[in-house]
Amino acid sequence: MGTAATRLSESPTGNNDAKCDYRQVASKKTADRETQLAKHPDWRVPDPGPEVTNVTELLLSKLTATEREIVHQDACGLLPKLASRQYSAVQVLTAFCKAAVASQDLTNSLTEIFFNEGFERAKQLDQHLATTGKVVGPLHGLPVSIKDHILVKGQDTASGYASWAYKSYADHDAAVVRILREAGAVIYVKTANPQTLLSLETNNNIYGRTVNPYNRELSPGGSSGGEGALVASHGSPLGVGTDIGGSIRIPAAWSGLYGFKPSVARLPHTGLLGSHDGMDNVVGCIGPLATSARDLNLFCKVMLQYEAWIVEHQNLYIEWRTDLAEQGKGLPNKLVFGILADDGVVAPHPPIKQAIEKTRAALLAAGHEVVDYTPLDHQASWDLIVKLYFLDGGAEYFATMAESGEPPIPSFSWIVGHTEGRPPYSIAEMFALNAEREKIRALAHAHWNATASKTTTGRPVDVILTPVSATLAPPHDSVRWWGYSSHWNLLDYPAAVFPVGQLRASEWKEPATAPNSVSPPRNDVEKVIRAQWDPFAYDNAPIALQLVGRRHMEEKTLACLNVLEEAIKLYNN
Amino acid sequence: MGTAATRLSESPTGNNDAKCDYRQVASKKTADRETQLAKHPDWRVPDPGPEVTNVTELLLSKLTATEREIVHQDACGLLPKLASRQYSAVQVLTAFCKAAVASQDLTNSLTEIFFNEGFERAKQLDQHLATTGKVVGPLHGLPVSIKDHILVKGQDTASGYASWAYKSYADHDAAVVRILREAGAVIYVKTANPQTLLSLETNNNIYGRTVNPYNRELSPGGSSGGEGALVASHGSPLGVGTDIGGSIRIPAAWSGLYGFKPSVARLPHTGLLGSHDGMDNVVGCIGPLATSARDLNLFCKVMLQYEAWIVEHQNLYIEWRTDLAEQGKGLPNKLVFGILADDGVVAPHPPIKQAIEKTRAALLAAGHEVVDYTPLDHQASWDLIVKLYFLDGGAEYFATMAESGEPPIPSFSWIVGHTEGRPPYSIAEMFALNAEREKIRALAHAHWNATASKTTTGRPVDVILTPVSATLAPPHDSVRWWGYSSHWNLLDYPAAVFPVGQLRASEWKEPATAPNSVSPPRNDVEKVIRAQWDPFAYDNAPIALQLVGRRHMEEKTLACLNVLEEAIKLYNN
Repeated sequence: MGTAATRLSESPTGNNDAKCDYRQVASKKTADRETQLAKHPDWRVPDPGPEVTNVTELLLSKLTATEREIVHQDACGLLPKLASRQYSAVQVLTAFCKAAVASQDLTNSLTEIFFNEGFERAKQLDQHLATTGKVVGPLHGLPVSIKDHILVKGQDTASGYASWAYKSYADHDAAVVRILREAGAVIYVKTANPQTLLSLETNNNIYGRTVNPYNRELSPGGSSGGEGALVASHGSPLGVGTDIGGSIRIPAAWSGLYGFKPSVARLPHTGLLGSHDGMDNVVGCIGPLATSARDLNLFCKVMLQYEAWIVEHQNLYIEWRTDLAEQGKGLPNKLVFGILADDGVVAPHPPIKQAIEKTRAALLAAGHEVVDYTPLDHQASWDLIVKLYFLDGGAEYFATMAESGEPPIPSFSWIVGHTEGRPPYSIAEMFALNAEREKIRALAHAHWNATASKTTTGRPVDVILTPVSATLAPPHDSVRWWGYSSHWNLLDYPAAVFPVGQLRASEWKEPATAPNSVSPPRNDVEKVIRAQWDPFAYDNAPIALQLVGRRHMEEKTLACLNVLEEAIKLYNN
Repeated sequence: MGTAATRLSESPTGNNDAKCDYRQVASKKTADRETQLAKHPDWRVPDPGPEVTNVTELLLSKLTATEREIVHQDACGLLPKLASRQYSAVQVLTAFCKAAVASQDLTNSLTEIFFNEGFERAKQLDQHLATTGKVVGPLHGLPVSIKDHILVKGQDTASGYASWAYKSYADHDAAVVRILREAGAVIYVKTANPQTLLSLETNNNIYGRTVNPYNRELSPGGSSGGEGALVASHGSPLGVGTDIGGSIRIPAAWSGLYGFKPSVARLPHTGLLGSHDGMDNVVGCIGPLATSARDLNLFCKVMLQYEAWIVEHQNLYIEWRTDLAEQGKGLPNKLVFGILADDGVVAPHPPIKQAIEKTRAALLAAGHEVVDYTPLDHQASWDLIVKLYFLDGGAEYFATMAESGEPPIPSFSWIVGHTEGRPPYSIAEMFALNAEREKIRALAHAHWNATASKTTTGRPVDVILTPVSATLAPPHDSVRWWGYSSHWNLLDYPAAVFPVGQLRASEWKEPATAPNSVSPPRNDVEKVIRAQWDPFAYDNAPIALQLVGRRHMEEKTLACLNVLEEAIKLYNN
């Protein structure tokens, strides 16, 4: 995952005496975390026991009314109040730290906790503003949480491997963190991701499983699942994740948040620590998890405002087209949405199908054009991307696990099973896989262009509306289809996810066309996923959809999301 | 080289009965070419014999005064006259075809000749303009020549391999050709490139060697050497080449032309046919060879005006910043040029060193700032890129040669010798090489940023002025150092080359600091190249320099070239 990662120095704090056995590492690591939490006894929330699955209310039980008000605002809402000193940076950080502690207690979302450093920074910011009357940057005083995968100077970067714990202290900030700090953000926690990062859930041998605050029997998604759980817990207003197959979008969707996966290198992505450093056959990216669409834009705008192409060498030199992203400048009044409701491999569960149809109605009601977007061969794109994930046959993953004797987590065992134990590809075979990737990309590109013949405007569709996944936030270890998210990584298209509702099992009415009532499943995967459907298994899970744009058209994608949300709002009123 | 190539259909014209032995293929291929040339007996120029080395005058001996006037103009000069019907498209094409025939007769620059198709198109364009009063596009009536490597519908794409001749007829145009046609260009010839494309000279087992019109004992460069020789012969006003180690810039420099290598995917580069389809560890690009700096801009502007990112899937969505490229909008009045006069491995020959110093003086005289740009480890970047060229140990190159029994050309034997017969890299080793590449890129990026501390403005240098190669156009098969060109491919920086003079051996005065008079050579390569220096060996060779910009800053690079040329003009007056 990611690029330009380097193994960093061993623990500077004397913890490198930890034995290599993963169980010892894990117990030391969790004890260290507990030490940080124990500094704030008043903020702790005792676990109410497994029978309490929905902890969304409980999470805020230690917050004052003002703190609740603070943590219910998005970044764009908080920033002017920080700038005008209606809230101090310390006050805002306190509110989010309290909720973050609760989030850890109830969902297990955190890895590294460094509130002290955050408060130090918040104080400096408050002082700076008081003295100069000026903010240090556009994110002055905003707490931002960071996925464990991403280097934060001075912090460990175990990145889900017990084998790396205490061995990967960062001697510098990742480019994204560097810009965040320059812009005035306050960095105070790192969040959980799964072992190997190659999982759409969040589980590892250091801290165990992260759970969904809406229903703790469900996954918050992964690999940026700590971010999903934390931001959904109001423990952070804005999180930074990474995505090579759905790892920003899936936790955003399953945790009821907004998430954005830009095209590769549109945002700065050097300074990650994962396996396969130097693998560029399929490349990941960083992006935000947030509580509003406008915060997705804010994050991208700030990154590029700080000339990310000068901060790091990999970032594309493309300035942020703010007028388009924010005001929709240049967008036609009437948009054309392509709807890809079913990828031809696995039909989405009924609540997702229903959400698509409701959104279609809203778009039509608002005067937009809607055409069905015929999927290409999504099974082929999945078969290919999973080969690209495992070009070395999984050797490096297993070698890393062997360092501490840690076993693979179940979701990794499932995905690595796709390799069927084949040996690493040769260079010539790898070239052929890349060529196949380019062929799929070329076909998909031509396919999008060809939608011009289906629209009344004669233009190709502006964006594609599609599910994020075939299911809502699933019971743990049950993910069996990545196709709705990983397809867009293979194509390198930007994709935003946004919440559209929540499943209430007791109120759910099975539609007449529910999957179990129609034609037999098209394949074994669909059979498995269809069998998973049961509204009570997904009770309280958020419902989300995905908007996909053309490569490098991040701004247009977000502008279309604004238009779509406006249409939904009108339709619901 | 290049991407998304596909082997195409066998000869549609019955020529696929050619036996596979390369000698038979070569003799049939050259006979076919001769058939095309023989249609124009009045345009032929008999070879004056090897004692006549400089054929620049002879090349135009069959042209009328008006035709000479035409072929001495650049594209930007011709286009308004075509648009205003001062010249007809047929008339312009006739002039360039006559010179192209002479160029073939005297320098062996052509592969596929399809004048008929060109004249058909030129007639249609003339008719369209006469009827509608409108040009079909910004290149209306401009003849453009295409390197053999690039697919032109209906034409063979042997691309320097006897093994591919008659087996690679293109069923579609490369993206660049498609846009050229839409813009009104006339496609009429393809031009020679070396076997494997991995050579900075031009020689193959089909047509033999292409020579330099300024001195036929010298190379016109490669791999786009047919373009170099043809455009220098006035047989084309604008040529399209490809570059993965210097293959546009070297022939431009050695043939007295302008050439531009953009960052990868800034210009459309799908539709090339070379070895290693799917290799993206180091990627090539397309770009123009031209007779003026403004034509480099024209070419890029037109490509992006036609939304290359919609035409193909690989092109970056970055519009052409015309105001900057053409009018220098946003450039400071006083620029800062970094001068990298010696790459630390091989000192350039004296005329190149002299040209750098003269240009430095011109820049200072015009009020610009000049700082020395300390090279990083260019030997390391060469050692790495040559590994990336041969990840499979050269296996695919040799397998292709084996198809027709053709031997490797000498310059390929030299470069493949770097592999020392090692076996293909493993996937894990390949990841490590990529990681090393990213490390070098990151260092180089930081190094550029750090020049801010050396300038009076506090800004990093705007561009780097540096040699294109250590020697002028060399005697055949004597190239031994690619570092001045391939370094910028490894970093993916845009680089423009431009002519600054010509060596007249009889007038050459050896400077006191000529390389033979100073310290011993720093390494074996420098020893060899230093020993090559003899002004009479390079008599009449053009002298060129290179301007390098930051990644994706193509427009700024060209804008700085305009400023630099203005400074030189003032200095010379």
